[in-house]
Amino acid sequence: MSGNKAVAYKAPGIVEIIDTPFPTFELQAGPGVNPINVGRKVPHGVILRTVSTNICGSDQHMVRGRTTAPAGLVLGHEITGEVIETGPDVEFIKVGDIVSVPFNISCGRCRNCKEGKTGICLNVNPDRPGSAYGYVDMGGWVGGQAEFVLVPYADWNLLKFPDRDQALEKIMDLTMLSDILPTGFHGAVTAGVGVGSTVYVAGAGPVGLAAAASAHLLGAAVVIVGDLNEDRLAQARSFGCETINVAKGDPADQIEQILGVREVDCGIDAVGFEARGHGHGAGAQEAPATVLNSLMDITAAGGSLGIPGLYVTGDPGAVDEAARKGSLSLSLGTGWAKSLSFTTGQCPVMKYNRQLMMAILHDKIQIAKAVNAEAISLEDAPRGYAEFDAGAATKYVLNPNGYLNN
Amino acid sequence: MSGNKAVAYKAPGIVEIIDTPFPTFELQAGPGVNPINVGRKVPHGVILRTVSTNICGSDQHMVRGRTTAPAGLVLGHEITGEVIETGPDVEFIKVGDIVSVPFNISCGRCRNCKEGKTGICLNVNPDRPGSAYGYVDMGGWVGGQAEFVLVPYADWNLLKFPDRDQALEKIMDLTMLSDILPTGFHGAVTAGVGVGSTVYVAGAGPVGLAAAASAHLLGAAVVIVGDLNEDRLAQARSFGCETINVAKGDPADQIEQILGVREVDCGIDAVGFEARGHGHGAGAQEAPATVLNSLMDITAAGGSLGIPGLYVTGDPGAVDEAARKGSLSLSLGTGWAKSLSFTTGQCPVMKYNRQLMMAILHDKIQIAKAVNAEAISLEDAPRGYAEFDAGAATKYVLNPNGYLNN
Amino acid sequence: MSGNKAVAYKAPGIVEIIDTPFPTFELQAGPGVNPINVGRKVPHGVILRTVSTNICGSDQHMVRGRTTAPAGLVLGHEITGEVIETGPDVEFIKVGDIVSVPFNISCGRCRNCKEGKTGICLNVNPDRPGSAYGYVDMGGWVGGQAEFVLVPYADWNLLKFPDRDQALEKIMDLTMLSDILPTGFHGAVTAGVGVGSTVYVAGAGPVGLAAAASAHLLGAAVVIVGDLNEDRLAQARSFGCETINVAKGDPADQIEQILGVREVDCGIDAVGFEARGHGHGAGAQEAPATVLNSLMDITAAGGSLGIPGLYVTGDPGAVDEAARKGSLSLSLGTGWAKSLSFTTGQCPVMKYNRQLMMAILHDKIQIAKAVNAEAISLEDAPRGYAEFDAGAATKYVLNPNGYLNN
Amino acid sequence: MSGNKAVAYKAPGIVEIIDTPFPTFELQAGPGVNPINVGRKVPHGVILRTVSTNICGSDQHMVRGRTTAPAGLVLGHEITGEVIETGPDVEFIKVGDIVSVPFNISCGRCRNCKEGKTGICLNVNPDRPGSAYGYVDMGGWVGGQAEFVLVPYADWNLLKFPDRDQALEKIMDLTMLSDILPTGFHGAVTAGVGVGSTVYVAGAGPVGLAAAASAHLLGAAVVIVGDLNEDRLAQARSFGCETINVAKGDPADQIEQILGVREVDCGIDAVGFEARGHGHGAGAQEAPATVLNSLMDITAAGGSLGIPGLYVTGDPGAVDEAARKGSLSLSLGTGWAKSLSFTTGQCPVMKYNRQLMMAILHDKIQIAKAVNAEAISLEDAPRGYAEFDAGAATKYVLNPNGYLNN
Repeated sequence: MSGNKAVAYKAPGIVEIIDTPFPTFELQAGPGVNPINVGRKVPHGVILRTVSTNICGSDQHMVRGRTTAPAGLVLGHEITGEVIETGPDVEFIKVGDIVSVPFNISCGRCRNCKEGKTGICLNVNPDRPGSAYGYVDMGGWVGGQAEFVLVPYADWNLLKFPDRDQALEKIMDLTMLSDILPTGFHGAVTAGVGVGSTVYVAGAGPVGLAAAASAHLLGAAVVIVGDLNEDRLAQARSFGCETINVAKGDPADQIEQILGVREVDCGIDAVGFEARGHGHGAGAQEAPATVLNSLMDITAAGGSLGIPGLYVTGDPGAVDEAARKGSLSLSLGTGWAKSLSFTTGQCPVMKYNRQLMMAILHDKIQIAKAVNAEAISLEDAPRGYAEFDAGAATKYVLNPNGYLNN
Repeated sequence: MSGNKAVAYKAPGIVEIIDTPFPTFELQAGPGVNPINVGRKVPHGVILRTVSTNICGSDQHMVRGRTTAPAGLVLGHEITGEVIETGPDVEFIKVGDIVSVPFNISCGRCRNCKEGKTGICLNVNPDRPGSAYGYVDMGGWVGGQAEFVLVPYADWNLLKFPDRDQALEKIMDLTMLSDILPTGFHGAVTAGVGVGSTVYVAGAGPVGLAAAASAHLLGAAVVIVGDLNEDRLAQARSFGCETINVAKGDPADQIEQILGVREVDCGIDAVGFEARGHGHGAGAQEAPATVLNSLMDITAAGGSLGIPGLYVTGDPGAVDEAARKGSLSLSLGTGWAKSLSFTTGQCPVMKYNRQLMMAILHDKIQIAKAVNAEAISLEDAPRGYAEFDAGAATKYVLNPNGYLNN
Repeated sequence: MSGNKAVAYKAPGIVEIIDTPFPTFELQAGPGVNPINVGRKVPHGVILRTVSTNICGSDQHMVRGRTTAPAGLVLGHEITGEVIETGPDVEFIKVGDIVSVPFNISCGRCRNCKEGKTGICLNVNPDRPGSAYGYVDMGGWVGGQAEFVLVPYADWNLLKFPDRDQALEKIMDLTMLSDILPTGFHGAVTAGVGVGSTVYVAGAGPVGLAAAASAHLLGAAVVIVGDLNEDRLAQARSFGCETINVAKGDPADQIEQILGVREVDCGIDAVGFEARGHGHGAGAQEAPATVLNSLMDITAAGGSLGIPGLYVTGDPGAVDEAARKGSLSLSLGTGWAKSLSFTTGQCPVMKYNRQLMMAILHDKIQIAKAVNAEAISLEDAPRGYAEFDAGAATKYVLNPNGYLNN
Repeated sequence: MSGNKAVAYKAPGIVEIIDTPFPTFELQAGPGVNPINVGRKVPHGVILRTVSTNICGSDQHMVRGRTTAPAGLVLGHEITGEVIETGPDVEFIKVGDIVSVPFNISCGRCRNCKEGKTGICLNVNPDRPGSAYGYVDMGGWVGGQAEFVLVPYADWNLLKFPDRDQALEKIMDLTMLSDILPTGFHGAVTAGVGVGSTVYVAGAGPVGLAAAASAHLLGAAVVIVGDLNEDRLAQARSFGCETINVAKGDPADQIEQILGVREVDCGIDAVGFEARGHGHGAGAQEAPATVLNSLMDITAAGGSLGIPGLYVTGDPGAVDEAARKGSLSLSLGTGWAKSLSFTTGQCPVMKYNRQLMMAILHDKIQIAKAVNAEAISLEDAPRGYAEFDAGAATKYVLNPNGYLNN
């Protein structure tokens, strides 16, 4: 139990498996760890043996070199695990529990946590509200694409699955509860999706597919997914979505062919700041405001836009100076004339994960199928990152301890 | 009863009193009237003798020549009146009723009206959802800065005051129900203002002051108003607001001096697209994204921004090409990192006017005082426009028929 | 076009087909018509040729003699029709439109309608807020179990189906939009049903089945339906519900066998005041408080109870004096200790019918199958009433004009 | 520091000051302590030196012998204190903090706490969801009408005042944050009170007065308070309420004289199960359903009833067998016909206390004045209980450690 193999960012385009120390109940110095957090005691934490840990699109931002992430940063914020050791202050979570870890770390004691806003906890990141495992500028909590990982404030943060065997049987679905399923669901909820809605999801990556599957779960009448990647669009069609290849014409025209009208009730941005120009084919240049401007165009007056897609405050790799500072040229006049609303930010996973777990356990959603989940070994993580970056219509789930071998 | 004096836009900077036809139960051709609406029958309408009709900041956009409003367009969408004639389909509104007219015209029959979204009615403006009296591109319903005005769908649109004498006694307050009080209130509500909130209102014009007064009414703990105009700031202080002169330093610094922290819970944009650069003094250039970027800065993570300030889809007088198309360079990355929400658009007046009338009638809000309402004659309208444009801390209320002479 | 065959209540247990006058745009005197409403002009109305009109459980209360309904009252408030004539004030609804009629008549002009509370419209029933077609003490609007029927305030009340052929193809589902589907949905919504909820529905009649189907549509994890009638329980199982025969033991015990815990998140009362004692078999006596007390027992702390089941202010046929006055002996102490909430009253159909239409048209719900809809001729109405009263697991849909013959 | 004087219930009508042990970080056996909780470790707790602790109407239920409270039970759940010792797991609360203690004890780790439902925490009371200090059947957490008290899960439960001096200056207002102000506010919120509402509050005891003051804070247009006790009604009038002596005629008649209509928008039950018959004078018999039936009568269709008044599952002192079991004869038919909603249960104090603290600190509410707060010594508690029980229009605040002497 003295070592802990983990996936680390090394340089733009490069991730490697490295040896790291076994976690303890105290934050240690290391790449990406905020100095103020070094030495922080974590008696309220537990150590998990990782059951599954997924590669996320937002990890790709770091791996592509679009952030200030330092070399050696251990990646991974989508974590499901088995509790193998509990800190002295842990009262309700027990060794042997199989648990889902919300990607946003929160304390359960601050004003925001008390209001359910766990994505902007005030006590875990010295720099600003909000935190996550294995992520640049998020406080320095070590990533979970590893054999073992420390989870602080465990009684608050962890979602315990009611039955171990049932959990392991449905683990490829349940592993999506740590991030993308709640994140997609949050996008749908904040877009106002309900029974009978017509919905447009920009982006057919895993979050977009999760948003689409969530829209179905919420009772949407029609869910349309737009992307440039035909494999991912095929994936969307596999579970009942309509699709639009945004390279093949104006989205409004294509929506009209499907719905008979040029607008949907609800718009979801599952792309974020690395958007490429709609309607300009695979070689399209980055155009960070494209998706939001397009969504304002095709969302009906009075509608809401859910924006789970990540927008950053600084982007060293951006196409222009404005984008480097996180500024976008938005057609707000259009949005205002249509009385649109916009909700941004990290999904507060805890707000949704229990209800989505129930939906999975009772077969109301098949999220692993929807996102085409595929288990690979920890050692295969570099391949997973590369294929995902190349546009594979696959959600890669790492299997560091063999739980997924059955 | 054959004539009808009215205030008309003539050219940039110029309004005049003109003679117009007495209204009939059919829309007539005229400046700014959508051709599709010409000849439209209005048996569901009533004709009002105007009791009071206010000059609005959004009228100024037209008068300054910042829109495509044609010469001769009769202005005025803030109307209170006495019913003098009812169309054959009117069932519940009666001659002699004193009524408030929501500035947004709505049919009471379409999907949006049924959902309470009267600001984006589908049946009154052939061009797009939403309409207003006396406003460019809003369908061509004749303005109410006149002796008489036609109100369609009267049973639906009108708010009848319960008692004529009581209404006339409080008329300088009640006249604000047609637009700015609900608009300011909507800004506060959509900014999430509630009991105990700390609130920042950008802009101390009438809508900003109405938003501030509304925030007090909603139980806010501290309401801070920012502007460049000292007279208007003095007006804000007159009813218990804290104030910030944005020309005198970073708003966050000034907020910290008031609150002890650099952020508020709720932000309201009561300025809109004609914003001038914050922090650069009276000679500041227009900087349409300034207010929103500043609000993202000073609103705490998890907060909401209410945006009653008008943003337009096209602005011929804008400072640059992007702004001419209604595009703004917004620091969305900052907003996203803080999980902010944004609500834009016209206030659906009907959603709030009845409850705000109750608050006025029972002395829970003194809105006339808060905005420094002043009654002037119809003939004095050009002076009112000019003084308001010059920054007077006054809300001008026209008095075309002498109701306000007591 | 001079006659209009209709179903009328004649005496306890007896309904008959009678000849009635063809509707005009004025309310005529007749059995059950409020004298104040006689002579009321309806220029805003349309005349429908009935496409389908369903027998409702609440009709049974009248037919069983449990109300003060007079002999000759024409029944029927679940109406779908084709517009054959429009009153002079009707602007948007056209001859030839196929439309669904919300059972609650509303004016679209009063405070409650403006707030979406169409079940308690202030202008249609002289006795009290709220009205319905063909129902005792509801204003006297003539029932729609007839060849033709008058619908007032047609632009406001009617939901137009977007395509005639599509509508007639799905008519057995769409016919449920006038009452039981929205009513069941309202029960689910007000019980707080959402994604992942566990739900108990008391009563497997059509409204209970509609509530159960709605709960599925809203994403519930588990829906449990309880009744004494095995045929109806089998019907519930046919679309994925769990079931409980309340005659066979304590519902909490049976719930525990299904869920592993003795309580559900959400409780729905789809029975109302004619409840029979739970757990006492088919010969059970009426026990009007049984269902609500049972629901308080089995709904978890913090839960909500949706109560679409009808409770009346007076019940001449009640088992005791208290019940005759509409009083029930409720274990409110239990409810209070568990912080339960309760929502009662008519479903405001307009709030839900458009979104539920979308769900039907896009195959997200199969409500006709769920409630076992069966078309019968108008002449067969007496048989329908009798079989339904005897407990048939069938929803009877009358077919007065042959639209359902294909 | 070895002793701890406290107020204990001794027998019906009798409370005494007794010596109790100084609190430790472990629950000890004692009167009213649930055996399952004996020995429970509380490393997450803090020990407070009591700054103020109020006598509550719900304490009276025990003192009157209307519960199964054992002799010797230490009373007190309205607690404000200074932290003098922190358990080893406490991270954010510090010695010297002045804090308000929500009366409902909660863990901050269970599903209900995560959803903000701290009134029904699952982990603090072995008998059922929900707990409180010094209260029968609530788990056995020792009461705070004492010099010192233990507060578990301190980082979660406690509201820290931002400034010690400011806090002590406004302590007579802030002491109401532990229970009655949030409880009254919850009653108003769940009754749907908002800007412009008309409100009826049944009961002018401290909770009723707090509900009335909260309704004003929420922007209500008119707040009417009803009671039989003229002194308490005078207290209500002192801060702008209208009042009704329910002994002097039908409340609906009296409401009509005030409002011109016989119904209010929102109804609040601040009385609970020990209600006396309305309209029958001071010698009235208990009639536990009276208040709720009256509220259904005078609340307008579509309204909501907030029910902070306590209803119990068992009442050994009740007037009849039904009431002894917590059953009430409710006119649910009336409520149903009017589409009323009902919210019951303990107020989840944490949901509101921070925002209400802000309102107090910024002088938006004068709650101490509204409830006529009076500080008395700990030794005077028996007098306070007796006078309060006799109907004094006073809220008694105990002062065990001299903090209130200035």
